[in-house]
Amino acid sequence: MAGHDFVMFDLIAKKRDGGEFDAAEIEFWLRGMLDGSIPDYQTTALLMAIYFRGLSEHETFLLTDAIVRSGEVLDLSGLPGCKADKHSTGGVGDKTTLIAMPLAAACGLTIVKMSGRSLGKTGGTADKLEAVPGFRLTLSPKELRRQAEAERLVLMTQSNNLTPADKRLYALRDLTATVDSLPLIAASVMSKKIAAGADVIVLDVKFGRGAFMPDAESAVRLAELMVKLGRQAGRQIAALITSMEAPLGRAVGNALEVWEAAETLKGHGVPDLRLLSLALTGEQLYLSGLAATRRDGFRLAGQALDDGRGLDKFLRFLQAQGGDTAKLEQGGFLQAKTQLAVSVPRGGYLQAVDAAQVAGIVQHLGAGRLKLEDKIDYQVGVWFDKQRGDKIAAGESLAHVYAESEEQAKAAAEALLAACTFGDVPPELPPLIYGAVTAAGFIPWAELQQDYQ
Amino acid sequence: MAGHDFVMFDLIAKKRDGGEFDAAEIEFWLRGMLDGSIPDYQTTALLMAIYFRGLSEHETFLLTDAIVRSGEVLDLSGLPGCKADKHSTGGVGDKTTLIAMPLAAACGLTIVKMSGRSLGKTGGTADKLEAVPGFRLTLSPKELRRQAEAERLVLMTQSNNLTPADKRLYALRDLTATVDSLPLIAASVMSKKIAAGADVIVLDVKFGRGAFMPDAESAVRLAELMVKLGRQAGRQIAALITSMEAPLGRAVGNALEVWEAAETLKGHGVPDLRLLSLALTGEQLYLSGLAATRRDGFRLAGQALDDGRGLDKFLRFLQAQGGDTAKLEQGGFLQAKTQLAVSVPRGGYLQAVDAAQVAGIVQHLGAGRLKLEDKIDYQVGVWFDKQRGDKIAAGESLAHVYAESEEQAKAAAEALLAACTFGDVPPELPPLIYGAVTAAGFIPWAELQQDYQ
Repeated sequence: MAGHDFVMFDLIAKKRDGGEFDAAEIEFWLRGMLDGSIPDYQTTALLMAIYFRGLSEHETFLLTDAIVRSGEVLDLSGLPGCKADKHSTGGVGDKTTLIAMPLAAACGLTIVKMSGRSLGKTGGTADKLEAVPGFRLTLSPKELRRQAEAERLVLMTQSNNLTPADKRLYALRDLTATVDSLPLIAASVMSKKIAAGADVIVLDVKFGRGAFMPDAESAVRLAELMVKLGRQAGRQIAALITSMEAPLGRAVGNALEVWEAAETLKGHGVPDLRLLSLALTGEQLYLSGLAATRRDGFRLAGQALDDGRGLDKFLRFLQAQGGDTAKLEQGGFLQAKTQLAVSVPRGGYLQAVDAAQVAGIVQHLGAGRLKLEDKIDYQVGVWFDKQRGDKIAAGESLAHVYAESEEQAKAAAEALLAACTFGDVPPELPPLIYGAVTAAGFIPWAELQQDYQ
Repeated sequence: MAGHDFVMFDLIAKKRDGGEFDAAEIEFWLRGMLDGSIPDYQTTALLMAIYFRGLSEHETFLLTDAIVRSGEVLDLSGLPGCKADKHSTGGVGDKTTLIAMPLAAACGLTIVKMSGRSLGKTGGTADKLEAVPGFRLTLSPKELRRQAEAERLVLMTQSNNLTPADKRLYALRDLTATVDSLPLIAASVMSKKIAAGADVIVLDVKFGRGAFMPDAESAVRLAELMVKLGRQAGRQIAALITSMEAPLGRAVGNALEVWEAAETLKGHGVPDLRLLSLALTGEQLYLSGLAATRRDGFRLAGQALDDGRGLDKFLRFLQAQGGDTAKLEQGGFLQAKTQLAVSVPRGGYLQAVDAAQVAGIVQHLGAGRLKLEDKIDYQVGVWFDKQRGDKIAAGESLAHVYAESEEQAKAAAEALLAACTFGDVPPELPPLIYGAVTAAGFIPWAELQQDYQ
């Protein structure tokens, strides 16, 4: 991009006035931001202007592309098979990655997943897996290759060399209230996915109380943008749009979620978690061509779960990366100092469980972190004995709190009851999956569910 | 403001979403910005949010007040008489301060003026005065007091202790395309005027090609806001709204403008410059109570000009601050290496002179600066032999260029011709003064002009 004579001031003024950037202008900005020739106080002013003015689809593509090229791009082409990846925009109790990954690998896909340690209320996938004693998140390139060839399943913390521009942008957005911008979110997520090198990408875009996007409409808009970005980068990509009003499944907390993933792979999963995990796996199989139809993909995933190949793959994967799976297989995996049953004072139907409040409760127990250097308590969390729609009798147990002290457990139990709503009639619950955004357009749940049988 | 537990992130998000700050929040922001606890990249994001969301009148007042209190506030109460100040939002060839200041002092007002070295195309008032050999812009507090008592007229570069928050905010706005915000402009101007301690403030808010505000309507809006801010701070204040399509008067350039100011005070001024200078002086006299009516103020100012008291005050003021006025009084003050007459190829009426283009031409000659460390060439500039509406014959001189070389003079002459429009009939020119914004509301030119006789 040499020879261009931009001034950052002019770029800020251009976006402020609703102008559209070209590739050279975006390149100039990101390079200057990374080499320090453009001060952060200019970048944050531009980010706020983007918050108000937006980015066109083309600009968002250019930004995504420039972020990808700001660092290393993983070359997975030497590895066997079709490389697939799955990404969730984040939810409470969302352990689908732990289930869908081994199912996809068991069905023949190759999964090399980069997972950042999360700055969230309840830990990211990497954090959850560290609840398994001995599990290592860093592998040498040689180990990575060997494991990908042997197991077709690897999960590592994200390399520092991937998408450095995204890291800097995200840090600045996070401090200046400019995270909440559709094109910036899409460029951030998709640049990381593209740089991570997979051929097939399936997104889970969540909406509701426990998610980043407030409603289904905005989730669909974000998904449509991300699917376009992925296609422009030559990837097979689709997104499921899913509700995140209540926690997904029964467990919220790191070890608890690993346990629930294993239970689900053993065939003891609750319907919502099983459905979404199979749908996400099936979509990867369909996009890769390993399944001829979406319905075939879903069935193949279900067979791998039902015949134990998914569980087997999960355990072999954990062991290959140093994890001791004995307690996960035989019991004793959950070791919080205190377990407290949360019983309800009077009976009724469980109408609603506020995912955001539950996340706050579990964070308060010590399961998440606010700064990257914070330590996580892997053992604490909540296990819901009941889910929305269940009938519950007075004195019956709604959930179990796993905590480090009686005191913390009691406070969490009280807060949990306040986060739940009870009623005399069964609630009408919307479907977990709102629809799918695919290359062929939006598919609503009414149509989609015919393939999930 | 101890005890408040704000986080800058929340303030940015609040303004981003259209919220309104209270006094404690604005105080927190400015203090943090100045003590470094709030990084500039957060301040610039907030400034861009303010650009888009605006500030309410009350917020603007709170911001102005907080900026005033961020530094020293001049206490002029020990000086004799009513202290008056005049401020122009900036125009091309605007030397009214050089004329109105001595007239106001000659009529009994006390003028202690702070004038920043300007980052503009054609130099600020302080720069212009430095064209007078020996003139000193820095005075000790003792010198200031002695001169204010003896001459009632002092002009100094702005103290570094005044409105430090404005300096920091302005520097950041200037680098992030957030200067152009009505409330931020108003708070910046008025905080400086209020901190400078005058009882009476008269503003000249300009609009048009050579001004900051594009049209009369936006100039009136800005003036109304500034007048409110001044009144809330307990000052007597009014604003004239004036057109800045063509340069004001004949001269553009530092020494040239000082020369024209002296010529005007000698009674040889052109009508537009004389009118505006008297109107600005008269308004100060009226607001201070030294004149009973606006018409009396204008007449008193005119008398001080016509009987030579204004010129006498100007020369004594320059001398008191070390200026050698001999050449200004007797000739020889203009000493550019080259003078070039700009003659027109064919005759006609001068229809328009593009003030912005003229500013660029004079800056190119070396009269302005882009960085504070740039050196100014005091001698270069343009003297218009003709003004808009004048008839000019083929071969007659439109203007004289004062330059450091023949080459520069020729380039400037060519550009000047391109900046002017000629026609066969006299142009219809709007009045120079569009109206006035006063405590009693807006007064249009049609009404105002009755007092200017």
